Amino acid sequence: MKLTCVGIGPGGGRDMTLRAREALEGAELIVGYSTYVRLVQRDFPHKMYLATGMRGEVDRCRMALEHAAGGEQVAVVCSGDPGVYGMAGLLLELAPEYPGVTIEVIPGVSAANGGAAILGAPLMHDWCSISLSDLMTPWEVIERRLVAAAQADFCIALYNPSSKGRQDYLRRACDVLLKTRSPKTVCGCVRNVGREGEECRTLTLQELRDAQADMLTCVFVGNSQTVVVDGRMVTPRGYRLEGQ
Amino acid sequence: MKLTCVGIGPGGGRDMTLRAREALEGAELIVGYSTYVRLVQRDFPHKMYLATGMRGEVDRCRMALEHAAGGEQVAVVCSGDPGVYGMAGLLLELAPEYPGVTIEVIPGVSAANGGAAILGAPLMHDWCSISLSDLMTPWEVIERRLVAAAQADFCIALYNPSSKGRQDYLRRACDVLLKTRSPKTVCGCVRNVGREGEECRTLTLQELRDAQADMLTCVFVGNSQTVVVDGRMVTPRGYRLEGQ
Repeated sequence: MKLTCVGIGPGGGRDMTLRAREALEGAELIVGYSTYVRLVQRDFPHKMYLATGMRGEVDRCRMALEHAAGGEQVAVVCSGDPGVYGMAGLLLELAPEYPGVTIEVIPGVSAANGGAAILGAPLMHDWCSISLSDLMTPWEVIERRLVAAAQADFCIALYNPSSKGRQDYLRRACDVLLKTRSPKTVCGCVRNVGREGEECRTLTLQELRDAQADMLTCVFVGNSQTVVVDGRMVTPRGYRLEGQ
Repeated sequence: MKLTCVGIGPGGGRDMTLRAREALEGAELIVGYSTYVRLVQRDFPHKMYLATGMRGEVDRCRMALEHAAGGEQVAVVCSGDPGVYGMAGLLLELAPEYPGVTIEVIPGVSAANGGAAILGAPLMHDWCSISLSDLMTPWEVIERRLVAAAQADFCIALYNPSSKGRQDYLRRACDVLLKTRSPKTVCGCVRNVGREGEECRTLTLQELRDAQADMLTCVFVGNSQTVVVDGRMVTPRGYRLEGQ
């Protein structure tokens, strides 16, 4: 029995790969967080769905594995890439309890890659991905990673920059970065990547400190070389252009 | 006039998004590094192609922009995601010289995300992407980033781990990581992600130090929590599983 863990890209639809689409077409049951299930239902309205809310991740994965063990073709859908803050790891951790079920992870365009493309090309050089959610990671670990990323001049994609319970986390993260990085560092925010209401803007690290961002926003902090070219956020890789 | 910069995923074909496919279908001229052009030609055999070799990046982008400025529908293809060590940044840097040409970056599944899916789920927690190529980046900068990534316990995807001119760079990178990280750290290598001859294996950081890797290999170094579950490389995100 095979269970597929399918990345639908940041907003599903046209940013989904052909392999993801084929997996959903072949699925008898599609399991996922309710927001992601809604993104998939537009294109596959006649499938069976099993949707659960946030923080139901372990139960959701167990249900999917149980249905797969029972012989159903099951696809677990994740926004972006299932291997980046998605369900691929949890499914693989639980899989030994369901012998006979093999798991295929189908990669997708992650929110960082999708958001970067909208802003321009902020992640052209070495970069790192840091989630500001401290639901499962102590803030001290997050802070240590922010310090390291700032000191080594990585471009940074910040996931989960804020939520109802932690309105000031983006500000705290910026304060950590500002200890090392210039307040003029070029930054960008993209909201609703690949979805209705998509919007983006560039701003400085100092301005980012006082900006509003919600859970649907992906935040980008440039490295020391990042610039704005014709309104687009670009991190040069280092090609020598004639005449410069 | 619009030029599209298209990510075809790690190997093109089924890992390409619908948006990428539509852009290639609509293109009159497809420009790219010869290896990537070959990946696209399988699916779009009747297009006009303009292929150049490695290190011809600036000329390739200028040619593409000139054809677009002349009114042609041009697509520049990149393996993986064009915004990660691809052509998106260079095109946007050069674009002001070609007024009237607007650039749409179409994101793709990057080699890191594609390779991770084959190994399992090594990038489930905060991670960073580091290229070991020192063609355009001094080794001191690369080393500083390796040190920071190791100290802050990031999962790491290493691009360009080796080439003819720098056979020992992966070994040097491992030696840097081994100053901080355990020699038992779980690592993985994937060769030919999404292409013919795809192969993967897991190994320890100590073993990775003495492993062979070429430019077609993507290397993954786990964080301190990364484990092998039923042969798959998995970095737990921190969900509490019952009974553990």
